[in-house]
Amino acid sequence: MASKYPRSLRCCLPLCAFILQVAFILLFWFFISYDTPQMQQKFTVTYQVIQDLTLMAALGFGFLSSSFRRHSWSSVAFNLFMLALGVQGSILLDHFQNQLFKEDVAINLLSIQKGTMSTVPVLISAVAVLGKANLVQLAVMVLMEASAFGVTKFVKKKYFHVEDHIITMYGHVFGAYFGLLVAWCLSRSLPRGPGEEAQTEKVQMATSSSLFAMLGTLLLWIFWPSFNSALVKEPNDKKKAVLNTYYALAVSTVTATSMSSLSHPQGKINMVHLHNAVLAGGVAVGTPCFLITSPWVAMVLGLTAGLISIGGAKCLPVCLNHILQIQNPGGIHYTFGLPGLLGALTYILMHGKNKNSIFNLTNQMINDFGALSFVLAMGMASGLLTGWLLTAKVWRAPHTSKYFDDQAFWEFPHLAAGF
Amino acid sequence: MASKYPRSLRCCLPLCAFILQVAFILLFWFFISYDTPQMQQKFTVTYQVIQDLTLMAALGFGFLSSSFRRHSWSSVAFNLFMLALGVQGSILLDHFQNQLFKEDVAINLLSIQKGTMSTVPVLISAVAVLGKANLVQLAVMVLMEASAFGVTKFVKKKYFHVEDHIITMYGHVFGAYFGLLVAWCLSRSLPRGPGEEAQTEKVQMATSSSLFAMLGTLLLWIFWPSFNSALVKEPNDKKKAVLNTYYALAVSTVTATSMSSLSHPQGKINMVHLHNAVLAGGVAVGTPCFLITSPWVAMVLGLTAGLISIGGAKCLPVCLNHILQIQNPGGIHYTFGLPGLLGALTYILMHGKNKNSIFNLTNQMINDFGALSFVLAMGMASGLLTGWLLTAKVWRAPHTSKYFDDQAFWEFPHLAAGF
Amino acid sequence: MASKYPRSLRCCLPLCAFILQVAFILLFWFFISYDTPQMQQKFTVTYQVIQDLTLMAALGFGFLSSSFRRHSWSSVAFNLFMLALGVQGSILLDHFQNQLFKEDVAINLLSIQKGTMSTVPVLISAVAVLGKANLVQLAVMVLMEASAFGVTKFVKKKYFHVEDHIITMYGHVFGAYFGLLVAWCLSRSLPRGPGEEAQTEKVQMATSSSLFAMLGTLLLWIFWPSFNSALVKEPNDKKKAVLNTYYALAVSTVTATSMSSLSHPQGKINMVHLHNAVLAGGVAVGTPCFLITSPWVAMVLGLTAGLISIGGAKCLPVCLNHILQIQNPGGIHYTFGLPGLLGALTYILMHGKNKNSIFNLTNQMINDFGALSFVLAMGMASGLLTGWLLTAKVWRAPHTSKYFDDQAFWEFPHLAAGF
Repeated sequence: MASKYPRSLRCCLPLCAFILQVAFILLFWFFISYDTPQMQQKFTVTYQVIQDLTLMAALGFGFLSSSFRRHSWSSVAFNLFMLALGVQGSILLDHFQNQLFKEDVAINLLSIQKGTMSTVPVLISAVAVLGKANLVQLAVMVLMEASAFGVTKFVKKKYFHVEDHIITMYGHVFGAYFGLLVAWCLSRSLPRGPGEEAQTEKVQMATSSSLFAMLGTLLLWIFWPSFNSALVKEPNDKKKAVLNTYYALAVSTVTATSMSSLSHPQGKINMVHLHNAVLAGGVAVGTPCFLITSPWVAMVLGLTAGLISIGGAKCLPVCLNHILQIQNPGGIHYTFGLPGLLGALTYILMHGKNKNSIFNLTNQMINDFGALSFVLAMGMASGLLTGWLLTAKVWRAPHTSKYFDDQAFWEFPHLAAGF
Repeated sequence: MASKYPRSLRCCLPLCAFILQVAFILLFWFFISYDTPQMQQKFTVTYQVIQDLTLMAALGFGFLSSSFRRHSWSSVAFNLFMLALGVQGSILLDHFQNQLFKEDVAINLLSIQKGTMSTVPVLISAVAVLGKANLVQLAVMVLMEASAFGVTKFVKKKYFHVEDHIITMYGHVFGAYFGLLVAWCLSRSLPRGPGEEAQTEKVQMATSSSLFAMLGTLLLWIFWPSFNSALVKEPNDKKKAVLNTYYALAVSTVTATSMSSLSHPQGKINMVHLHNAVLAGGVAVGTPCFLITSPWVAMVLGLTAGLISIGGAKCLPVCLNHILQIQNPGGIHYTFGLPGLLGALTYILMHGKNKNSIFNLTNQMINDFGALSFVLAMGMASGLLTGWLLTAKVWRAPHTSKYFDDQAFWEFPHLAAGF
Repeated sequence: MASKYPRSLRCCLPLCAFILQVAFILLFWFFISYDTPQMQQKFTVTYQVIQDLTLMAALGFGFLSSSFRRHSWSSVAFNLFMLALGVQGSILLDHFQNQLFKEDVAINLLSIQKGTMSTVPVLISAVAVLGKANLVQLAVMVLMEASAFGVTKFVKKKYFHVEDHIITMYGHVFGAYFGLLVAWCLSRSLPRGPGEEAQTEKVQMATSSSLFAMLGTLLLWIFWPSFNSALVKEPNDKKKAVLNTYYALAVSTVTATSMSSLSHPQGKINMVHLHNAVLAGGVAVGTPCFLITSPWVAMVLGLTAGLISIGGAKCLPVCLNHILQIQNPGGIHYTFGLPGLLGALTYILMHGKNKNSIFNLTNQMINDFGALSFVLAMGMASGLLTGWLLTAKVWRAPHTSKYFDDQAFWEFPHLAAGF
């Protein structure tokens, strides 16, 4: 019986988090300083983008995964913790990378913007792991994934000559497969037991936490054009990025709702499908959004992403759960993984279109495919490594029976009163 | 008993929505293209307004009507579906109208802004119909109302020479009376039955979904100045529009709270009154907001709107429910209908003030009254037509006993597990 | 038994609120007019700041205190009422003060910004009082506190030559101690009774209202940089204010989470700690944010604020509840009071750093300490006065057994149906 009680994190969590935080402060002390003044106008625009991104990261991703009946507190609060840690880590990594490239090494508002966008893959991966890992494991995952994504970005910039915007958009794919592999490792490491039945009850959605998840989805839906256009530099491309993202999201909303109804014997809509599939259009259009010159292309992409996402949600759980033994209630594979791949392939096709000779075209496509494969390989390899690391006993992982249970991590006042 | 089960939408909804979506994509393909580059600065300002409006439309109106105990999922998700469909339809309609006027026919960020503002009347109407119609009926309503409002805008622009801002603000009145007439048709078409008692339980508010409705109200409250000032062109008028809207909203909040307390025998405040009446000030000040040159005028308007709104909420249900047999739990009549009329009348009075001769004044007022009457007539006529259309059996309307019930439309995981 | 029923506010509340509102409208009529046109660009920037601040005040502070099981409606709605009243009052006060200083007396967008920032101390105080006072008492408190803070600002500007930014940031300390003293007076004035046990059940958090409180916290977290930088004038200082606030918030989030786990015997995290302590970093960095030139200083400040806040939450309730008999479930003392004092002391130390002679330094520090002591003294004195005033029978304060109970103030439809 005793082993069923949550293993105490009292020494482990504060020690790890505190040492990490002090280390970050020391690194900031030695290496980071603010840059010289910049213009007022630029400040306002950049600050607005940062606010949109922080809103998406803290509220959107936080509430997106809050639909489980007994795990909503952890989803929201752990997401904020990972964001706060991830942004600091990403800013430090970016800084050291820039020093290697001999680029501008001062810290400004753009650093926070880039740091937030680099943390988004971490938050995506976390959706697959939340409920099965404690906060120490998540902090380790944040560090591992931020480093792996930093290395990926560095290699792609140096050897594949890929722009910042493309690298960041490949982050969806990176985050999705990283998270899936970590979840696979965690689920393999534990013996199956009688806790499974109890778990089924816990992963059920409650009506009001589903509304919170809808709030997260809607916030992501509203601010997704900001995310897709944040790193596009040329003003006209930025405008196209916003418009294309908007149309793709609108079409994928209509498609997702109708397809979800088609996939149920009585024509009922599944809320979880909707939470994920309405965003698929925005993910799919992410990489090529600044290249698309007509709204209908973005709309077709949104339609395809919606179909893939709902199709994946109906068919993939069967394959993944039973063959690979990955449990994936958050559905990041068909929200971020598959639509992200669709977007990457569309980008590779569109990117080659303007090349004049067949040699250049082939060259370009090989380079682009190489970059995409590298992201996938890095995501899977680092995910596997991280997953293997997280199965170590030292992290005091929660017992299977405590999966998706807020009571393992949170002090409930009305329980304390009952003691 | 069998008839009590929800009629399956499995074939109907996906077919309608999918065909509609593909038709929209084809129309976009043939007719719509992006415009030429525009300046960076203009982009930032327009994009911010679009975000505010999308936030109001998707989150504000979505959660505003989510206070029913068992209908909150449908309210939020169907609202997003209608928004995604309505914006696409409005952009297409706008485009064809502009071609008739030989105006600029390219699509840019402003098209999305105008499309969102044209969809707001649809979302207002939907508040009266939500819970009594399925998603196919709502999609038909979106198409009918968007077309009717498009025709109204066209006629008013061509024959009454009314500006864009005024037409859009009349949309509150249009949407409110359209929705009321549709709800009247729907309630007339069905026999009264034993389902009514069950319904009473369903329209009760739950504490936490009331908080979601409050969230929607607050988001509308905060961003209403953006809505009222979005189509005002001259910078100084825009500033006045924002300030007047802010003061009117502040006063209507104080008024609504105190009047709601006065109207209850024990001085208790009604949450539903509050959800609606705090917005009445913003609606009332909408049409004349750019003409008002002193804050106190806007404040008096806010005070009057708050009084009308609470007064209407106490007295009108009795008349409407028993005489006209309209059930109107969302209260759009006294949130958008009456305050919108108050605003329109104030505008007509203020608009004539600057005319130098009595002939011009009379002429102006006749024209303005004509425009307002035309909006009212169009809203009621098209509402009646739409309502009559929606009572057709082909739409598989939900049974009365399934009114305001999420289970008619949604797959609940914990029910599926119980089978 | 009869005395246990809520005392009716039917005559009292509408009368007070309505007279107050009409008085405000008359004062606006006689004294306030809009200023002359200003530039478009300036408008956009100011309007964005106003939206951020209104979002923080209406949604952030509204939901921050909504975590009690049976008091969430009152928290949110009363907060909006106080905001609407407080902004109007602060604009009027500011206007009369400016007339005394012979400054620009016209009303523009900046007036609303300043008014909202002056109302924030009122909303902070209200967190300590909410649940123990009715709406009439809160309205009186708004008037008293707005006036007292107005006088404090006037004296500090005239005699201590303190800038607007500093005065506004001292508002956290002012609001916290004002609220604590009012709560102390209210708790002293009432006899202890059997209602206390029932109250314990009521102050328990519900899972979903805790998520609403988390929503409020997250919104405050996201927009706090806007608050801290709103009144900083020089663009480069503004940028530093935003960056420093962001880093301090990120560090205080990590610190708060890990310290909250350390302070529990089984390493569990307390949600209430988290709601408050993640903001402590932003409060602490508020006053000196524009002076700090390296991110690590802000991060150390965030770390210290997180430690103080969690330490205070664990130790202070024991002292405050048992010795001073102040019940403070909202925790404003360790969220706004102590971190605010930390920030003020840091500012005083940093402000003196650049003085060249020891005489100037001493002079400066005496002046700064005087200003801080004056704020503290004014906050406590006016809080004591207001608290004493609010214990008068004329306000029909709710009975102790009705503390933290929405049913004392709100009409619940499902109860009405049961009659």
